[in-house]
Amino acid sequence: MKCRKCAGKAVINMRQYKLALCRDHFLEWVPAQTQRTIDKYQMFQFCERILVAVSGGKDSLSLWDILGRLGYQCDGLYIDLGVGGGIQYSDESQRCAQEFASQRNLNLHVVNIQKDYGETIIAIAERSMRGRDKPCAICGIAKRHIMNRVALEGGYSVLVTGHNLDDEAASLFGNTLNWIPGYLARQWPVLEANRTGLARKAKPLCRLYEREMATYALLRGIRYIYNECPYVEGSKSIYYKELLNKLEEKRPGAKLTFYLSFLQAKENGLFSPYADPDLEELHPCPTCNQPTSAPGQCAFCRMVAHLV
Amino acid sequence: MKCRKCAGKAVINMRQYKLALCRDHFLEWVPAQTQRTIDKYQMFQFCERILVAVSGGKDSLSLWDILGRLGYQCDGLYIDLGVGGGIQYSDESQRCAQEFASQRNLNLHVVNIQKDYGETIIAIAERSMRGRDKPCAICGIAKRHIMNRVALEGGYSVLVTGHNLDDEAASLFGNTLNWIPGYLARQWPVLEANRTGLARKAKPLCRLYEREMATYALLRGIRYIYNECPYVEGSKSIYYKELLNKLEEKRPGAKLTFYLSFLQAKENGLFSPYADPDLEELHPCPTCNQPTSAPGQCAFCRMVAHLV
Repeated sequence: MKCRKCAGKAVINMRQYKLALCRDHFLEWVPAQTQRTIDKYQMFQFCERILVAVSGGKDSLSLWDILGRLGYQCDGLYIDLGVGGGIQYSDESQRCAQEFASQRNLNLHVVNIQKDYGETIIAIAERSMRGRDKPCAICGIAKRHIMNRVALEGGYSVLVTGHNLDDEAASLFGNTLNWIPGYLARQWPVLEANRTGLARKAKPLCRLYEREMATYALLRGIRYIYNECPYVEGSKSIYYKELLNKLEEKRPGAKLTFYLSFLQAKENGLFSPYADPDLEELHPCPTCNQPTSAPGQCAFCRMVAHLV
Repeated sequence: MKCRKCAGKAVINMRQYKLALCRDHFLEWVPAQTQRTIDKYQMFQFCERILVAVSGGKDSLSLWDILGRLGYQCDGLYIDLGVGGGIQYSDESQRCAQEFASQRNLNLHVVNIQKDYGETIIAIAERSMRGRDKPCAICGIAKRHIMNRVALEGGYSVLVTGHNLDDEAASLFGNTLNWIPGYLARQWPVLEANRTGLARKAKPLCRLYEREMATYALLRGIRYIYNECPYVEGSKSIYYKELLNKLEEKRPGAKLTFYLSFLQAKENGLFSPYADPDLEELHPCPTCNQPTSAPGQCAFCRMVAHLV
């Protein structure tokens, strides 16, 4: 297969676009696509300071790499959750994140949950009702809290995450299977910081397939952690991804159409402005001051105070 | 497995409700569920005359049977489309519909497309651009036109079809994969006759699984055509049903939740009133007087006039 642009040897064929590209043109194409997404959804400007949430995986490290190549000013944030499993997941992913940062002379914040809050996320999950079976919900609460805290304390105007199209489509699929109005009303490539105490969040890779991101990381020589978090196994999102992959196999582009037509329909006013019932119910947590919809303390503060 | 109500031998276990029932209790349960659906969505009253669109399959014949047992006044409508295939689909399905009606002394209207319009639906499809590959779109246009005509001419206040939960969930799934605002805004168990020239339409079986309907038909001794229309093979709706069945296998009730939470979200005002862009664009077809959104003649009249 030949590159559409230069007729050189193609390294990837993107069936959904009927587009095959060689190494050099693909490595140009990915940042260009990312820039288009940043522009279309007005995510951020070149003058803004950006905090990249880095897990050590292919998506977040590639995102940091891409934003740097595009000329944005980004620092990284790695959260050491203390996830072991047979593969020492947290240790290995932190090594990848730190190696990436130091090789490029970039600034990486590291937050260690055990050091800052006395316990690993797994220990917190094991003693809580909500996390007993699976630590993912607890882990999500902690990550959201810490990312927001570091973004606000560091004066960053936007927090970016490496969610790719497969992630966003799977999340949309889950929200659609249960038609949860609030989630559907809120899912968007950028969430404005329009409520006091919440940093703006953006997902610049939301239109790039996971497969494209893996190819990008490989071709850029980025060392990342190949394994998924050991607790991801058996999760709903993995199952939704498998179903969407089946659809995609039969109809290349189905995943992209699913996600983009949702965004388009939303832009065209599909949802009523009253679709998000939680919109007005936030108040500041008396302990950490971050906004929360729960009564009294936020879920994170209750969690570290042994109240859940 | 034992019947939840009488501890007799269960004939069906409905995992999504954790409900096993014996023959007699299941045969009571299906009409009771149907009545609940009719009431909840205010489909029709006992005083109204109902036209049941009958294909000869398990769903529509069971629907006619159920509505009769519930005490509604129903006539049937069978449309002979002239579909052969190796199995003489139309002949066999008409035999089932007529046998059902005559055994119960019910009134069945029969419309023969070839007799009334000069050609079978397959012949029309073969000479048209739109139906060349697959006659399904053409067939859908013809059925909708004829069902509406017979309902209006016969003074029926409502036209009912045998769409079951699997049909509705697959249709919703397809509409969701492409987020087509008009389709999502219009999908509902009953469509009011609020536009001149369109009969009210209702789907009283929309909350019953296909499997439940097959069991019902079997236990009631209804002879129906087992084969699907030969042109259904390879259709998107079959594929969507397969995917939803995979979901259901893993999570009993997933299909029901998908459909019912959609209806609930709609009732709660998820969609904006402007979501259906086609709503106001209907006008009467100059030939048949039925409402159409196409400019000039409706799709059906253009089709029989050899204009498509």
